[in-house]
Amino acid sequence: MTAAYVRRPGPAAGIEVGSLPRPSPAAEDVLVAVETVALDPVDTLVRSGRYRTALPLPFVLGRDLVGTVVSCGNAVRGFYAGDRVWCNSLGHDGRQGSFAEFAVVPSERLYRLPDGVDPDTAVAVAHPTATAYLAWFVHGRLRPGQTVFVGGGAGNVGLAAIATAALAGARVVTSCRPEDFARCRQAGADAVVNYRDPEPTDRLIEVAPEGLDIFWDTSGHTDFAAAAGATVPGARILITAATGPAGAKTEMPLAQLYTRDISVLGFVISRASVADLAGAAVLINRMLVRNQLHPRITERLPLEQTASAHEHMEAGTVKGRILLRP
Amino acid sequence: MTAAYVRRPGPAAGIEVGSLPRPSPAAEDVLVAVETVALDPVDTLVRSGRYRTALPLPFVLGRDLVGTVVSCGNAVRGFYAGDRVWCNSLGHDGRQGSFAEFAVVPSERLYRLPDGVDPDTAVAVAHPTATAYLAWFVHGRLRPGQTVFVGGGAGNVGLAAIATAALAGARVVTSCRPEDFARCRQAGADAVVNYRDPEPTDRLIEVAPEGLDIFWDTSGHTDFAAAAGATVPGARILITAATGPAGAKTEMPLAQLYTRDISVLGFVISRASVADLAGAAVLINRMLVRNQLHPRITERLPLEQTASAHEHMEAGTVKGRILLRP
Repeated sequence: MTAAYVRRPGPAAGIEVGSLPRPSPAAEDVLVAVETVALDPVDTLVRSGRYRTALPLPFVLGRDLVGTVVSCGNAVRGFYAGDRVWCNSLGHDGRQGSFAEFAVVPSERLYRLPDGVDPDTAVAVAHPTATAYLAWFVHGRLRPGQTVFVGGGAGNVGLAAIATAALAGARVVTSCRPEDFARCRQAGADAVVNYRDPEPTDRLIEVAPEGLDIFWDTSGHTDFAAAAGATVPGARILITAATGPAGAKTEMPLAQLYTRDISVLGFVISRASVADLAGAAVLINRMLVRNQLHPRITERLPLEQTASAHEHMEAGTVKGRILLRP
Repeated sequence: MTAAYVRRPGPAAGIEVGSLPRPSPAAEDVLVAVETVALDPVDTLVRSGRYRTALPLPFVLGRDLVGTVVSCGNAVRGFYAGDRVWCNSLGHDGRQGSFAEFAVVPSERLYRLPDGVDPDTAVAVAHPTATAYLAWFVHGRLRPGQTVFVGGGAGNVGLAAIATAALAGARVVTSCRPEDFARCRQAGADAVVNYRDPEPTDRLIEVAPEGLDIFWDTSGHTDFAAAAGATVPGARILITAATGPAGAKTEMPLAQLYTRDISVLGFVISRASVADLAGAAVLINRMLVRNQLHPRITERLPLEQTASAHEHMEAGTVKGRILLRP
């Protein structure tokens, strides 16, 4: 089968697209014929070795797929050949990836694609929306009636964060560029501020005088002073990205945070439990059926362009989702 | 009655010890004749105005007391004149303090002193042990079998932290000066390291190769690099103190933390719920009865020396608990 893979962790130039043996499913696995895949920022961190995780070599890249069941291992229940399915947790922790004609998926990580859902939309939202689910409902413990801040609201994760928080009964304040205000409002934001506002703390207090319960900058540029100044006591600051080189340090006003019972909660989707990912999948499927997720798909490429897609992602010039087709 | 009070927030020199009207208990309150009080570091932050909280003026200082019930408001159940009692949450959030001959205590914040317990020991452990309870069992979610690190193990909070974590089935690693190693072991520490070890991360990995589940430096000198390097994924770093001036910033290796699902949980006892404080009081009383708490009481002073006691505390020269007697 054709696959996009690396022989060892390293730069994007090491990505090869060529023939690998078609994998066979073990007892608990499902063999899936892959129709479409999406490129996640974390794919570049796994490929480069910056995010350390167990990788079989040669390593097929990629986490997400939509496809069709070909065959199932003996112990698999509930999936049958021909079922339309999706997954968002391949390609790390010892599992091969999705960027290939065929992929083996542990059945507990495979979800049914609801009838009538566009596969490109599904593969585009799977990873960012699962991240948002983990942020609000697993780590942040969001409750209906609370107010949240989403930094970088027009990004892939930002749009998913807005939509899921709004659906869960939160008031949503977001930041983005002025040209993206309408997009963020459409996703469900109640208030939008310019991400370059010179007085972010004052601006947040103005649009959310009740105080923010959760502060999440999905862009990685967390402004801890604004987070400390515009949140309620007991608030949570979520960290899912950080800017700068690998060893970069960020300054935090520690006394302002601890004296107000504020937590800084960092997490990556890579460490999410199978149960939490399955919980996210239930919500994602429901939102897909109701047409409540609107990803920004900017490119649809053949698998052969995986290396250049990785390079674009690392250059920081990607403004939406890149899908590829094996 | 004689009381130690300030007319407004400010320096220790503004503390007066003189006569104030004896307070009357409202329906839910208990009037207590105070026998002994303890000076907490936070008392100086409330007095100076650095920790902002509602203060009736003139404001009687202090949080902790052991004493005897004089009379009860109409709605109080379960307390009677002559009962021996203790409290550790006066002197903030609109409540007058404990540094006086008499104090009014809301009955939900008053706990019975078990028979046979030394009042000086009780008043000395009340605040630090409640802080440790909140750290491990409310914020840190400590489970038996986990390994924790207590920085500053020979301090008042450190000794309470060691004793409560050991009692809860944790393996306890602590840091202190070599002359305090024996004291920390006696409190329940399984391993003790020099607080000035030049390679703290390596040293912690050596004594806790299983990885730390919770990292709590009670001294306020949190070494985030060591915390990131010696903890398990999903670990919690607790923050209950910070060094430096009010606006000081601390550098954190954010990427190292969030990619390992590590949380930084800040809290102050001042924001604890009545229910959590009552939970702490149950544990404290049980440990007092079993003689499991051994505070370091370094001074016993008359109430008239409150101002100089505050000054010593702020100079950082206090090495144990200071008790005062009205």
